[in-house]
Amino acid sequence: MNIAMIGLGKMGGNMARRLSRGGATVFGFDVSADTRSQLAQEEANFKAFASVPELIAALPTPRVVWLMLPSGAISEAAFDEMKTLLAPGDLIIDGANAMYKDSQRHGAELAAMNIKFVDAGVSGGVWGLQNGYCLMFGGEKDAAAIAEPFMKILAPGADRGWTHTGPAGSGHYTKMLHNGIEYGMMQAFAEGFAMLKAKEEFDLDVAAISETWRHSSVVRSWLLDLIADTLQQDTELADLNAFVPDSGEGRWSVLESVELGIPAPVMSSALYARFASRGNDDYAMKLLSMMRNAFGGHAVSKK
Amino acid sequence: MNIAMIGLGKMGGNMARRLSRGGATVFGFDVSADTRSQLAQEEANFKAFASVPELIAALPTPRVVWLMLPSGAISEAAFDEMKTLLAPGDLIIDGANAMYKDSQRHGAELAAMNIKFVDAGVSGGVWGLQNGYCLMFGGEKDAAAIAEPFMKILAPGADRGWTHTGPAGSGHYTKMLHNGIEYGMMQAFAEGFAMLKAKEEFDLDVAAISETWRHSSVVRSWLLDLIADTLQQDTELADLNAFVPDSGEGRWSVLESVELGIPAPVMSSALYARFASRGNDDYAMKLLSMMRNAFGGHAVSKK
Amino acid sequence: MNIAMIGLGKMGGNMARRLSRGGATVFGFDVSADTRSQLAQEEANFKAFASVPELIAALPTPRVVWLMLPSGAISEAAFDEMKTLLAPGDLIIDGANAMYKDSQRHGAELAAMNIKFVDAGVSGGVWGLQNGYCLMFGGEKDAAAIAEPFMKILAPGADRGWTHTGPAGSGHYTKMLHNGIEYGMMQAFAEGFAMLKAKEEFDLDVAAISETWRHSSVVRSWLLDLIADTLQQDTELADLNAFVPDSGEGRWSVLESVELGIPAPVMSSALYARFASRGNDDYAMKLLSMMRNAFGGHAVSKK
Amino acid sequence: MNIAMIGLGKMGGNMARRLSRGGATVFGFDVSADTRSQLAQEEANFKAFASVPELIAALPTPRVVWLMLPSGAISEAAFDEMKTLLAPGDLIIDGANAMYKDSQRHGAELAAMNIKFVDAGVSGGVWGLQNGYCLMFGGEKDAAAIAEPFMKILAPGADRGWTHTGPAGSGHYTKMLHNGIEYGMMQAFAEGFAMLKAKEEFDLDVAAISETWRHSSVVRSWLLDLIADTLQQDTELADLNAFVPDSGEGRWSVLESVELGIPAPVMSSALYARFASRGNDDYAMKLLSMMRNAFGGHAVSKK
Repeated sequence: MNIAMIGLGKMGGNMARRLSRGGATVFGFDVSADTRSQLAQEEANFKAFASVPELIAALPTPRVVWLMLPSGAISEAAFDEMKTLLAPGDLIIDGANAMYKDSQRHGAELAAMNIKFVDAGVSGGVWGLQNGYCLMFGGEKDAAAIAEPFMKILAPGADRGWTHTGPAGSGHYTKMLHNGIEYGMMQAFAEGFAMLKAKEEFDLDVAAISETWRHSSVVRSWLLDLIADTLQQDTELADLNAFVPDSGEGRWSVLESVELGIPAPVMSSALYARFASRGNDDYAMKLLSMMRNAFGGHAVSKK
Repeated sequence: MNIAMIGLGKMGGNMARRLSRGGATVFGFDVSADTRSQLAQEEANFKAFASVPELIAALPTPRVVWLMLPSGAISEAAFDEMKTLLAPGDLIIDGANAMYKDSQRHGAELAAMNIKFVDAGVSGGVWGLQNGYCLMFGGEKDAAAIAEPFMKILAPGADRGWTHTGPAGSGHYTKMLHNGIEYGMMQAFAEGFAMLKAKEEFDLDVAAISETWRHSSVVRSWLLDLIADTLQQDTELADLNAFVPDSGEGRWSVLESVELGIPAPVMSSALYARFASRGNDDYAMKLLSMMRNAFGGHAVSKK
Repeated sequence: MNIAMIGLGKMGGNMARRLSRGGATVFGFDVSADTRSQLAQEEANFKAFASVPELIAALPTPRVVWLMLPSGAISEAAFDEMKTLLAPGDLIIDGANAMYKDSQRHGAELAAMNIKFVDAGVSGGVWGLQNGYCLMFGGEKDAAAIAEPFMKILAPGADRGWTHTGPAGSGHYTKMLHNGIEYGMMQAFAEGFAMLKAKEEFDLDVAAISETWRHSSVVRSWLLDLIADTLQQDTELADLNAFVPDSGEGRWSVLESVELGIPAPVMSSALYARFASRGNDDYAMKLLSMMRNAFGGHAVSKK
Repeated sequence: MNIAMIGLGKMGGNMARRLSRGGATVFGFDVSADTRSQLAQEEANFKAFASVPELIAALPTPRVVWLMLPSGAISEAAFDEMKTLLAPGDLIIDGANAMYKDSQRHGAELAAMNIKFVDAGVSGGVWGLQNGYCLMFGGEKDAAAIAEPFMKILAPGADRGWTHTGPAGSGHYTKMLHNGIEYGMMQAFAEGFAMLKAKEEFDLDVAAISETWRHSSVVRSWLLDLIADTLQQDTELADLNAFVPDSGEGRWSVLESVELGIPAPVMSSALYARFASRGNDDYAMKLLSMMRNAFGGHAVSKK
């Protein structure tokens, strides 16, 4: 049971660990030599390679290659390289947070070369090594069948936490909406705790409340577990900036809602709140300020 | 260990059961004689009374009276009656989904009569009997201390799932935002599953996906557990109306966000989606339709 | 034709001017002696008074007193004073941006004293002196009839720009929603111009675009006229802070939407954007940042 | 001064009229023979053609061809046909509501053939013939210079209501956001009037209010003029369905906001309200209904 893992970052590294501990032999590559050798030292079933061509040459056929790279340019370059290295019958599993339309395209391009393709959405973050990863993957049935034994090792249990969702692209489509939901849930909690914290007359202990809610409440959830952990250590968050990045899947969920014509006010609100946290609403707000001045003579706040 | 439970509906009835099974003697009243006698038959530690005055007369002092009634007129009438029946040193616990400002008022009015008061937010729904209830309660320290042993029985564990949040009103304030968060989470899931279902080209199995997400995903939560149960039985929901009621706490959360000046776009979006599901957006949409016709000559859909 | 104007600020001062130029004798009071004497110098039909009691004593009966004061404490104090100074048959017109429920209360309290009451929503801002004021006023028919000749002077034309909306409170209710709509329109323009400005590849001239849109486009409007004026002078707004206050009526519109159960996503979005511009979303965003770190190991931006 | 107008529908027909009345000779084609002959009868300077190739053959060179067709497949087919019929130095003006990226592509494709290109956003709807059209157009300077005399005829005035926005694509980009703003303004009015209408205790005359607001209020605008006209005839709108279509530009505005990372909560809310009016929120609402039943035992509304 052999598998290549290309990309050994926060996600790929731990997935390689879980796979090798679960009985697979993992052929690993990362641009960082330190990362590679670290894993080789840790894991008996892990073999490090200094280049992708060397790795592919060593990997028994039919090959199974898991790409765990940032979506976009790096990922596209890896697909291009794979097309030159792999042979008909080999399988690429893309575990990146890729746009599902890109995965549909990858699937079609590889199918034309008789290379199999699986697009795998992976959830679980830095906790996946310990708890297992939640996996939703698309691809042709024969491709999915080859991927399945590896999914069973990565998942929280051999018979749960993974599903073959349908054709190529459907795995990343499902993951996209998983993250869209995640954005909405996070924003719901953020709003609620902000309002608990802002109610000065009650001087509420948000750490105690979050801990209490973990037990038998309707909002109990893993995100709440993490919030409780955070607030246990610091309820003020005074040394943080109110600055929240976003990655592709929140955005793609909103784009998809527009394409489908399905209302997604919570997902879009959650996304826009992050945009605004980064100052992207500044011009709009300045213009509002000028409008108020122009019609009502209201004072304008100047730098 | 004696407690009165006034109101034995879906919530109060099961709370009476859990209290009596946990060692308390429960003095119960409900407007329905059937409901009262049913509980008296079921539970050894439950005593049914045909009227509130009889119940209060029988209850050993200092009394502990839990009101579990719909907020608003019925609840207000019960408070008024209690003021005529209770004595200084007695304690009222209000477990209704009451507006926190009403609870602050109740607390002040009762304090003037030397009657103690606790406002208890109760989460857990119909599952509380089995899993325990999540409890967040406000009130003076001496009142909270009297309430605490009962809370420990109702909660999922003697040392977890309950918290004394602060002064009177703070319990219901906390519960209000618990439900505000719940509205947002529910809407996030609803949007995500609607978009999964609408993607015809993938013909996704939303039951399988919801079950998969329950394991190690970032969105795992009790609400997702319930969704998975629902979809296991029916993924189409074809015989349902797209009609969603709302109760007070979602509304109060939005009102509070405006009072505090804290953005709550997810909570308000979730609330407004429910309003629209009940046809409350119809006039606005008809007017839009007329505007499009007026400037662009676009056809109007007529009945 | 005599009328008192209490409060001679940005709004009240210009309204006094327009009334006196239109043929009314205006009995004016303001806490600022300078403001009073300035108006007395400017306007032949304007009489300044050093105190409200002196003014009321001089005003011929039945009196017409227009209050043009900030809503809230100052306004309430003025109502209280008026109750001690006025006589049955007199009329108070409240032109403040008052909450309509407060106006309903004022109307009922004054009716009990046989003092008439009109609540007048006034739009037009600092341009009202020149263009006339748009007026929507509530009150009993006999009160409205007394107010009408003054409304005809203030309005942009004797037969347009004013309407008697119905009972006391309905004037301010109508003005509240006028401003709610205004919030939504302003935010729509702000979003659109922000996106025009952000499109670097086109390097668009937003001043020219705003001027062009003023002629025959669907979005032509007075707010657009003001935007065009602003952008003609400065398209970058670089010396402004992205900080936008809000006053009561935007908030009340959202509260009312919740009470009525009518979706108002645009009004609430516009209001929340202003809240966020003032840093009120910071705690929520910090908590999001911590959640991303907790589940995904994503870096947190620290101060 | 010769120009071809391809597409003589609600927009193109009236534009042909305004051009021919303004001194241009218009060479017109439409798939409907009736439409063509109708215009030929009406306008002295209008020449009807039975096919596009005949029209192009008759049009003096260098040709100016205005396409006024639905964006998408029909429009793309017309571009393809034009590439076979036109010669270097000719000019295509696309007045459709096209996606700006498509216009950038068209511009590049035509430039490779030395055919000039202008993308023109046209606002004004069915009122354009009478009031003039608001025009925002992109393209190379030499192309814009050829288009300009025609723009001056179409615009509300030779020196206003039109602007050359920049390179190809920038005209449609500007028009896209014009419409995004329009969506937000329309929704703002729709919310406000819905709340006026829903306030039964005041029994407000929304027709009178809309007419009043047209004069000196902050919300005065052309959209309000149209609303006032509509409500003058019917305030109940009882025979309409609450069903609102949307066309591309509202959607594209939201997509662009996500690409740019600029919050557009008002534009997205306006778009989603239309989606929901067409029943597209039904599955989400049904799932909410089931969730409420699952955790709280709340009744579900069934068909």
